[in-house]
Amino acid sequence: METLRVSGKSRPNSVAGAIAALLRSQSEVEVQAIGPDAVNQAVKAIAIARGYIAPDNLDLVVKPAFVKLELESEERTALRFTIRSQPLAP
Amino acid sequence: METLRVSGKSRPNSVAGAIAALLRSQSEVEVQAIGPDAVNQAVKAIAIARGYIAPDNLDLVVKPAFVKLELESEERTALRFTIRSQPLAP
Repeated sequence: METLRVSGKSRPNSVAGAIAALLRSQSEVEVQAIGPDAVNQAVKAIAIARGYIAPDNLDLVVKPAFVKLELESEERTALRFTIRSQPLAP
Repeated sequence: METLRVSGKSRPNSVAGAIAALLRSQSEVEVQAIGPDAVNQAVKAIAIARGYIAPDNLDLVVKPAFVKLELESEERTALRFTIRSQPLAP
């Protein structure tokens, strides 16, 4: 599964485009974010992506989870969003 | 549907408890947050709530969306998380 890493400086529209492109070709994509600003950008991107895939009759659902990452030999807790495509509800 | 309003000062464990309690008695609950800190607390709460309902063989999925709110006669954009319970995957 593809993993997109989102920072507080990521542009939500760009991340949304990447999420939408991946969901058109595979059923799942993962987004990881560390810290409030990154989490906020990630959620915005996911909300925007719903609009991008709606013309393809697709919607998405998200399962958020905590995940521990090793960054520069320090343990950090990230939020991981597992995003799955599903048919758009009528 | 019940709507929980989360701020940057909300305790994720408390919000998670409220989400879990509502999901045990109804299939959907809504969480609203304005601003990066509030969105971060909301996502943490939702991730924690998954652990709270797992012993009931329940999991949840989230659909995030933008929503415009009128607060003190100013228009603010909030993030709304529509949370739906589903059977826990084996």
